[in-house]
Amino acid sequence: MKHLLSMKQLTNDKIHHLFKIAKQLENGELSWQAEGKFAANLFLEPSTRTKSSFHIAERKLGLDVLHLDGMDSSLTKGESLYDTLKTLEAIGADVAVVRQSEVGLLDSCAENVNLSLINAGDGCGEHPTQSLLDLYTIQEQFEEFEGLHVAIAGDLKHSRVARSNAHALQQLGARVSFVTKPEWKDSSFSHRYITMDEAVEQCDVLMLLRIQHERHKQKTSASSYLKDHGLTKERESRMKEDAIILHPAPVNRGVEIDSDLVESKKSRIFRQMSNGVTIRMAIIQALLKGEL
Amino acid sequence: MKHLLSMKQLTNDKIHHLFKIAKQLENGELSWQAEGKFAANLFLEPSTRTKSSFHIAERKLGLDVLHLDGMDSSLTKGESLYDTLKTLEAIGADVAVVRQSEVGLLDSCAENVNLSLINAGDGCGEHPTQSLLDLYTIQEQFEEFEGLHVAIAGDLKHSRVARSNAHALQQLGARVSFVTKPEWKDSSFSHRYITMDEAVEQCDVLMLLRIQHERHKQKTSASSYLKDHGLTKERESRMKEDAIILHPAPVNRGVEIDSDLVESKKSRIFRQMSNGVTIRMAIIQALLKGEL
Amino acid sequence: MKHLLSMKQLTNDKIHHLFKIAKQLENGELSWQAEGKFAANLFLEPSTRTKSSFHIAERKLGLDVLHLDGMDSSLTKGESLYDTLKTLEAIGADVAVVRQSEVGLLDSCAENVNLSLINAGDGCGEHPTQSLLDLYTIQEQFEEFEGLHVAIAGDLKHSRVARSNAHALQQLGARVSFVTKPEWKDSSFSHRYITMDEAVEQCDVLMLLRIQHERHKQKTSASSYLKDHGLTKERESRMKEDAIILHPAPVNRGVEIDSDLVESKKSRIFRQMSNGVTIRMAIIQALLKGEL
Repeated sequence: MKHLLSMKQLTNDKIHHLFKIAKQLENGELSWQAEGKFAANLFLEPSTRTKSSFHIAERKLGLDVLHLDGMDSSLTKGESLYDTLKTLEAIGADVAVVRQSEVGLLDSCAENVNLSLINAGDGCGEHPTQSLLDLYTIQEQFEEFEGLHVAIAGDLKHSRVARSNAHALQQLGARVSFVTKPEWKDSSFSHRYITMDEAVEQCDVLMLLRIQHERHKQKTSASSYLKDHGLTKERESRMKEDAIILHPAPVNRGVEIDSDLVESKKSRIFRQMSNGVTIRMAIIQALLKGEL
Repeated sequence: MKHLLSMKQLTNDKIHHLFKIAKQLENGELSWQAEGKFAANLFLEPSTRTKSSFHIAERKLGLDVLHLDGMDSSLTKGESLYDTLKTLEAIGADVAVVRQSEVGLLDSCAENVNLSLINAGDGCGEHPTQSLLDLYTIQEQFEEFEGLHVAIAGDLKHSRVARSNAHALQQLGARVSFVTKPEWKDSSFSHRYITMDEAVEQCDVLMLLRIQHERHKQKTSASSYLKDHGLTKERESRMKEDAIILHPAPVNRGVEIDSDLVESKKSRIFRQMSNGVTIRMAIIQALLKGEL
Repeated sequence: MKHLLSMKQLTNDKIHHLFKIAKQLENGELSWQAEGKFAANLFLEPSTRTKSSFHIAERKLGLDVLHLDGMDSSLTKGESLYDTLKTLEAIGADVAVVRQSEVGLLDSCAENVNLSLINAGDGCGEHPTQSLLDLYTIQEQFEEFEGLHVAIAGDLKHSRVARSNAHALQQLGARVSFVTKPEWKDSSFSHRYITMDEAVEQCDVLMLLRIQHERHKQKTSASSYLKDHGLTKERESRMKEDAIILHPAPVNRGVEIDSDLVESKKSRIFRQMSNGVTIRMAIIQALLKGEL
């Protein structure tokens, strides 16, 4: 495959192949260098974290990086995303990492462009590289997905991470449960809903979602959210011995999770960020080498 | 010469010398690498396309790139362009690519700065690197300019591309005609005005200009412009067998040109973008090596 | 030491060690290359000049550079500086250069992050790399600080440069005087106040500060400031033969200094900028090699 647009494209074999490449990159066992190749990072919605992660991944592979963002209006104002991508192709980009808000728009461009596209988040749609770094972090802890119980907790309605992850985790053999408030339930999820108190006692992986205040009209009270739905220290104390905590960050400390737990023993939150660079290197390399 | 500020600086010999370098770069025949040299791209007016093209050209030559733009107010707010350029010189820039809006301002700075300046568009003045990539694309098709008929169509009054190209094309031996609406005629052009219907039948190169909506008070109706003054499919069918279509992009699809023609056989629109990288490499290399 | 947060951290030995490295770098005698290392430039307040200087310093050392600024809200909005720095650490940054407005905030983060921090200006607090480039420029002229008379002239109240420099200059053995308007006196300075007319006749180094119009409610009249408190040509003519003029730039020409003096024989204003790149290379190298 030439593009990575959705987790739905990836069979279990392909996911495990990416993990293998990532592990080799982490161990310094791969020497492929993309010297002379160009990546264009086209972020039309703000995302410094993902953008920075891609930047470092690209540079570590030896790619040159061209940054375009929402401020650079002249490339996209009155111009379709398709023409922008054709322009990037014409001036020599080999891969374009694209964040923008319209679900499906990137897919519609994919067929006719001669460069590799990576979806870095499309509105409330998918965010496959975030999903893959979550999965990689889980695999690092447990080696296998078969039989694992993963609870995804938070605002399911607005989360592209939940969407991508739920699909992939089940495909890989894990059991997925959801923890959420009634108004955040998403009818497209057919999974079992449980409470946070059930989740901490049952799950191997507690995947917290970020409350996206910017997408909500009614502000959620921080302290009451933590107490009612978040990961307090008391709840954390009831988690399984080797269970881990994930969060896509940035964390709202004291809301989704008690601030003291962010860097605690079970937390893999900063480890996820490190793994994000590695897994993005693996994805870019696999796409450019035609190995995916 | 040390700077490229205007097409008027370039004799035919110099233009052909740049084309020769560009061709060699394209063929991978030149090995000069500007390692350790720095380019500063100073874009005080938005221009992602030209900026991206220069970025890739500079990186392909091995230059390091420093980006400064209109948002970076502290370098230019309350500070003259001259002091900004002297600052760039002091911190080690070897070449500065400058886009800004005041005609002649860059020329006034050129004498006293010890780095190479490239004019990347100065308001309604000149845009010599765009002009050179247009000429290079024409030469790629026809080899010689002598006897060619080039029609430039669009808003002549606001086009720096028209100004730079008309001068250079005539100097190189081509015949230049203009197609425009009465209110867009520019008294500084003494050339023959023809209709679009005459242009498609007579010209070897149809050089469409972008309608710059942002510079016009009265909006032009898109569909009526295409029908009355643009390149429709019907008009295109009457063009000469080996005639080509140029456009500086971004294209207003369905306004200056029928959307279906943008990637058609006669169109060189995306080829121009590829050539833009090559010709800018040639320009930078020639300036830095003192070969221009 | 791992971080450079304040001039107060630096003994005279450490300052001279940095100057020695800088001199070697200037002479091309050092071959250390930081290939594979990453610098993150986190400028939450505008500062293109310092940012550009760091960028060039970092690239000359072979570091890769990640730029984050105030526009990149998603990394810092609703997220503490501490979490941002932990993120940069997690994704692989080796050094973070930080400009932000809260005095002491960076210090509070320093203990728990596993990368080197450089304070690139914290509000009205310190700006140690600017101070070191000033000192390096003085040393370049006079070799020793013992017995030198340095006059610092301008708005002492809002100047982090004055604060950092006054401390370091006295520690190095120089005599420091201040020239300012009554309303700009700062009670934390216990030094001798003199007039500009006394300063030009007595000092070896006249260190002009920039009038920061943006921090003042009442605008200072430009022409009256120059006449009453600035460096006019008449005053300059009374300076010692080998005395030098410093200014952190950008200069308000005709306010702090007569425009004709900016590039005059005694001025080291653009030399300071060149030295800024060199001294920042020395600082980064010393921190990363654990030599400071």
